[in-house]
Amino acid sequence: MIHQMAVFERLVDQCSATEPSLSATLFSKPSPFESFTVFVIEASTKPFPPCSIAHHPQFTPIHKSLTLDLPISDPESEKFRSSTMEDDVIVVGFVLFFPNYSTFLAKPGFYIEDLFVRESYRRKGLGRMLLSAVAMGYGRVEWVVLDWNLNAIRFYEEMGADVMQEWRVCRLTSDALQGYAATSGTADDLDCI
Amino acid sequence: MIHQMAVFERLVDQCSATEPSLSATLFSKPSPFESFTVFVIEASTKPFPPCSIAHHPQFTPIHKSLTLDLPISDPESEKFRSSTMEDDVIVVGFVLFFPNYSTFLAKPGFYIEDLFVRESYRRKGLGRMLLSAVAMGYGRVEWVVLDWNLNAIRFYEEMGADVMQEWRVCRLTSDALQGYAATSGTADDLDCI
Repeated sequence: MIHQMAVFERLVDQCSATEPSLSATLFSKPSPFESFTVFVIEASTKPFPPCSIAHHPQFTPIHKSLTLDLPISDPESEKFRSSTMEDDVIVVGFVLFFPNYSTFLAKPGFYIEDLFVRESYRRKGLGRMLLSAVAMGYGRVEWVVLDWNLNAIRFYEEMGADVMQEWRVCRLTSDALQGYAATSGTADDLDCI
Repeated sequence: MIHQMAVFERLVDQCSATEPSLSATLFSKPSPFESFTVFVIEASTKPFPPCSIAHHPQFTPIHKSLTLDLPISDPESEKFRSSTMEDDVIVVGFVLFFPNYSTFLAKPGFYIEDLFVRESYRRKGLGRMLLSAVAMGYGRVEWVVLDWNLNAIRFYEEMGADVMQEWRVCRLTSDALQGYAATSGTADDLDCI
């Protein structure tokens, strides 16, 4: 799904995640400096069986029924068959998010790194379900959107979100970071710090 | 310092944080969904005394000496006298950050919510010190900058950071969020989800 998202965002060249690297960083014992949550959305044409796997103590799976006009044709259903559930359960999307904090509002909130629904399942309200699951009980949610993704921007604005035109995301990656951390200049050329 | 930052960013109308609201949300017992770190930078004209307060088990204060051409004139020194240290120690800046995670890189990193140095102490390398303290040992750091803050953008680019022009920050706040979470439409109009 991460790879499919990179294809959609035209950023495949920036996507180097592999199954082993995701496994090592997402599913290893959490360090005190890591704190992220993943919700996965699964679909089945039959009622879900009682869940046999242990739940997280603070989260109970949410079940919803959708009535569709047409059956969904999913050419990749075999590849995305859920490994933790009975057969006929297909993984269709996910959201990965982590806590953040606004000093201006003095309020904790969430930052959504990824929100993705597989192509065959789009435009059925599943993304909205994932977003609502994150939003439950919380004060503020933030994420970023590509400026050419006008459908997404319109959707977010209709939802009541502010798409902020003035802010730019800055990113410093490992190589530049190491060079930078190693230097110790004392002549910052920056007004705000 | 948060209020002074809002003044600098021309966003005072968006800054509603108060001492009680910050105290309740930043210094209360951490919940499993909250995970932020604040580094404070303090300055003194005398050598720092051995620190009498207990350290965090995973962080030891960093001491640095700066030789300046001129003494610093700080009209607000009384207001920012450190309450945890001996006299003659002044709070001059802070950085607040929290862990994030890149699914494309399968790597944890940090997001810097705020980086601030008080006006009298700017252009002396203190912002760089704070940023280096966050960067130590980590793979990726992200933050946002206002598009009119050209000095900051130049500084970040010289540091090796990418200032990304294509991405826009989206924000959904409590009122809109509650309305949205309460609805359950099934007709998303969004291509990617």
